[in-house]
Amino acid sequence: MRPWQQRLHEIIFEADTPAGKAFDVVLLLLIVISVVAVMLESVGEYRQRWGSILRVIEWVITILFSVEYLARLVCVRRPLHYATSFFGIVDVLSVIPTYLAILFEGPQYLLVIRTLRLVRVFRIFKLHQYVSEANALAYALKATRTKVSVFLLIVMTIVLILGSAMYLIEGEENGFSSIPKSVYWAVVTMTTVGYGDISPQTPVGQTIAALAMILGYSIIIVPTGIFSVEIIMAQKHEVSTQSCPACTREGHDVDAVFCKYCGTRL
Amino acid sequence: MRPWQQRLHEIIFEADTPAGKAFDVVLLLLIVISVVAVMLESVGEYRQRWGSILRVIEWVITILFSVEYLARLVCVRRPLHYATSFFGIVDVLSVIPTYLAILFEGPQYLLVIRTLRLVRVFRIFKLHQYVSEANALAYALKATRTKVSVFLLIVMTIVLILGSAMYLIEGEENGFSSIPKSVYWAVVTMTTVGYGDISPQTPVGQTIAALAMILGYSIIIVPTGIFSVEIIMAQKHEVSTQSCPACTREGHDVDAVFCKYCGTRL
Amino acid sequence: MRPWQQRLHEIIFEADTPAGKAFDVVLLLLIVISVVAVMLESVGEYRQRWGSILRVIEWVITILFSVEYLARLVCVRRPLHYATSFFGIVDVLSVIPTYLAILFEGPQYLLVIRTLRLVRVFRIFKLHQYVSEANALAYALKATRTKVSVFLLIVMTIVLILGSAMYLIEGEENGFSSIPKSVYWAVVTMTTVGYGDISPQTPVGQTIAALAMILGYSIIIVPTGIFSVEIIMAQKHEVSTQSCPACTREGHDVDAVFCKYCGTRL
Amino acid sequence: MRPWQQRLHEIIFEADTPAGKAFDVVLLLLIVISVVAVMLESVGEYRQRWGSILRVIEWVITILFSVEYLARLVCVRRPLHYATSFFGIVDVLSVIPTYLAILFEGPQYLLVIRTLRLVRVFRIFKLHQYVSEANALAYALKATRTKVSVFLLIVMTIVLILGSAMYLIEGEENGFSSIPKSVYWAVVTMTTVGYGDISPQTPVGQTIAALAMILGYSIIIVPTGIFSVEIIMAQKHEVSTQSCPACTREGHDVDAVFCKYCGTRL
Repeated sequence: MRPWQQRLHEIIFEADTPAGKAFDVVLLLLIVISVVAVMLESVGEYRQRWGSILRVIEWVITILFSVEYLARLVCVRRPLHYATSFFGIVDVLSVIPTYLAILFEGPQYLLVIRTLRLVRVFRIFKLHQYVSEANALAYALKATRTKVSVFLLIVMTIVLILGSAMYLIEGEENGFSSIPKSVYWAVVTMTTVGYGDISPQTPVGQTIAALAMILGYSIIIVPTGIFSVEIIMAQKHEVSTQSCPACTREGHDVDAVFCKYCGTRL
Repeated sequence: MRPWQQRLHEIIFEADTPAGKAFDVVLLLLIVISVVAVMLESVGEYRQRWGSILRVIEWVITILFSVEYLARLVCVRRPLHYATSFFGIVDVLSVIPTYLAILFEGPQYLLVIRTLRLVRVFRIFKLHQYVSEANALAYALKATRTKVSVFLLIVMTIVLILGSAMYLIEGEENGFSSIPKSVYWAVVTMTTVGYGDISPQTPVGQTIAALAMILGYSIIIVPTGIFSVEIIMAQKHEVSTQSCPACTREGHDVDAVFCKYCGTRL
Repeated sequence: MRPWQQRLHEIIFEADTPAGKAFDVVLLLLIVISVVAVMLESVGEYRQRWGSILRVIEWVITILFSVEYLARLVCVRRPLHYATSFFGIVDVLSVIPTYLAILFEGPQYLLVIRTLRLVRVFRIFKLHQYVSEANALAYALKATRTKVSVFLLIVMTIVLILGSAMYLIEGEENGFSSIPKSVYWAVVTMTTVGYGDISPQTPVGQTIAALAMILGYSIIIVPTGIFSVEIIMAQKHEVSTQSCPACTREGHDVDAVFCKYCGTRL
Repeated sequence: MRPWQQRLHEIIFEADTPAGKAFDVVLLLLIVISVVAVMLESVGEYRQRWGSILRVIEWVITILFSVEYLARLVCVRRPLHYATSFFGIVDVLSVIPTYLAILFEGPQYLLVIRTLRLVRVFRIFKLHQYVSEANALAYALKATRTKVSVFLLIVMTIVLILGSAMYLIEGEENGFSSIPKSVYWAVVTMTTVGYGDISPQTPVGQTIAALAMILGYSIIIVPTGIFSVEIIMAQKHEVSTQSCPACTREGHDVDAVFCKYCGTRL
């Protein structure tokens, strides 16, 4: 790679230099502006009143994002690897609709894909602060992964069985017109969202629904408890940064005087 | 039991051999496919378009499930014990509706019973992974059983008293047409589901409803706290039962080889 | 007090003797039956079909409850003290409506007061089991009382300010017809019940409502955390049942070797 | 400052003297009365019936609040600093609407600003009790600030992306008339409020909505766990900073006089 490519890479992908930090801040602002512009344009009233201004903003941002995309392609070691990555695809999809809108009518709405660029915000933040916080969170999420997936499997099974039962009990005349729709109702109920667009009408259905609500209301305590404990464990094991001078193993408690693996004084 | 029965038992009921694992995976897939097929057939639109294909899938799965049921009956030591167990009844109920549908019109809808076979998914998973996770969960649930039942008793009493009170206050003209219906409303409200099909209209009713909401919103913290603590206790008891032979102190990690306080080999 | 009074007191108010236990179980059953009967009678359909049977059950239970009330009055040391206590008033109110129904039409509906007798269920349970569970719960609730009241005060202030703001923003034409009604909406929203009978229509109102929802959704974590910790503390201090042989003070940790107040070896 | 100013300052701003406590209690009562009066006047029915009484109460309270405001201005060291503080602005705004109502018709409704004076309730309480409780809460909130802001950023990003996706999927004919409105729906759904004024109608939309509900229902466990742990940490740090002079071990309770491990006076 040539020096100017390395310099560009430093600015775009890293945040150690003042130029890199400035680039991140400007990019963050542009992403937020582009999302706000797309949101405003979707409102009929604002589209009519400020349509031309919003169009100009859209074009300016599209061109800036296109330049950024090309710059990223130029300065990475493996352009194809970046182009086929999640961020690479999001980056290109967030500029294409504007260009296509010259030819066709519809694709302009696809600009909402730009909201996906908000995910990049976390990348930007990650470089500066929040790293240890995010790590602790990620650790706890990773540790509870198996338990949470068991929990979700149980919830999904309950929701499927409940939805099927309500389809038989309430039937099509009460809005439970198919099993998928009944399952949708079961999710709406068990998660305590409760739109009310579909609601049980028969006494048996209402009784089962009431029991499902109490279950759905209570069941959340299981993963909450598991997750709390996992964070405590994560925090507790955080205390051990000391490694044994004899066996070099880590993971000792803060109150440990001797290595618990080889018995050497710490 | 003859050798081929033992071999069959090993394949169907255990998961130590490659054949046993393969059987579990195939069964899991068939259960999921059968549930999806039943769900799709309940949607009027799909029933009309893909009705014949879904019918064929239904028959293929029914025959496979029937063969599986017979195989289970043949290879268990006590067939009657299996046939009268929860899984035995679910297994037979999940194939009967298809056969009955040759004679009658209605029972086809009873195929939703097949969703109950999803519970077998947990049996399958249990054999491989998740055992310790499930055990920890089961332990915590068992330990909190008394406390949770006290909590549910309190919630049910509150819900009954609240429902009765609202029946008197709001009356039939505002949708609270009977005490059971008012109790149903109370459950919908206390669990924060809030369909809105019944909602208080009088100032007094709305005030009581608002207080009930705040109570229902807050009351969930009680079992959450209890459960969290119980999991911590479960985790702690998993850790340390060994005491140091030299200083007799406890509280060592399970992977500890030496006492962390005095350095003696445990 | 005469011996037969003491014997009666033992049966009714205590549960150490077989007769006392039997009395509690029968009373429990009667309370549940009376509540179910009142609930069924409130449903128009059942009233018409089984009206006469329900009337008989009501009279039988009323007479039994009246006898129980008189027996309680006779065998307690201070009848007036019992008659003016919470349970004494509930007991008398749960029989009066039936007698009044001979003279008037309406008071029959007041039988829903009988649901308050369900509270006695806890008294009955308390005598047998659940005592230590209930004590642990009561201890944790007592310890968090100040924190929870601060929390509720904050929630009420937020709800009042939010309700007032929405009354100004949305106005009467969007259903926010008065401040009390707006405050009711604020409670419905902040507790995530969300009936949907009143919902913001203006963009500004919807934005504020969205922020209030996120706040209401998040704010519950505060008392949950506080309560969890309090139970942990309650559990930790539960371990100390040992009192110091020198100073007789209690409250030592399980791992304590010496009294932390006077230094004597425990 | 002159003596009478210092005396006035002691009464109004402090609560050590009987006069200061009395002032706080009277002020608390007046704030509550003024809020109740404003609430009642917003109800059309009560305004017609008790309009003249409510008007008198409003004027009495306005004059008392005006006197209080002037007294505060007179006795503080830097009047301008107070006048431009949050409480100074709220205090003046809570009296102005009544005076303006002599000239104009509308501003009377702005009296709802008085509800903001409820915040002063916390200042009053803070002087007496709740201080340590409030400090513990504030400490835990401060410690979790970064984690909670990461959590809120994630929630907002999910809500924006979900809202945009549903705008494309459901479209204007199903009530998702603009991206801001779709985002509002996403907040209503993710926080499990679920008004039901907008709800998905297409199968794809309902499937995505169901997944979003399960996510929204589960995601709250993350900050709950974080916050619980933070409070535990806060409580732990409150306990022990003292180490035994003999055995140098830590972990003693705050009320400990002797080391619980070796019996030495701390």
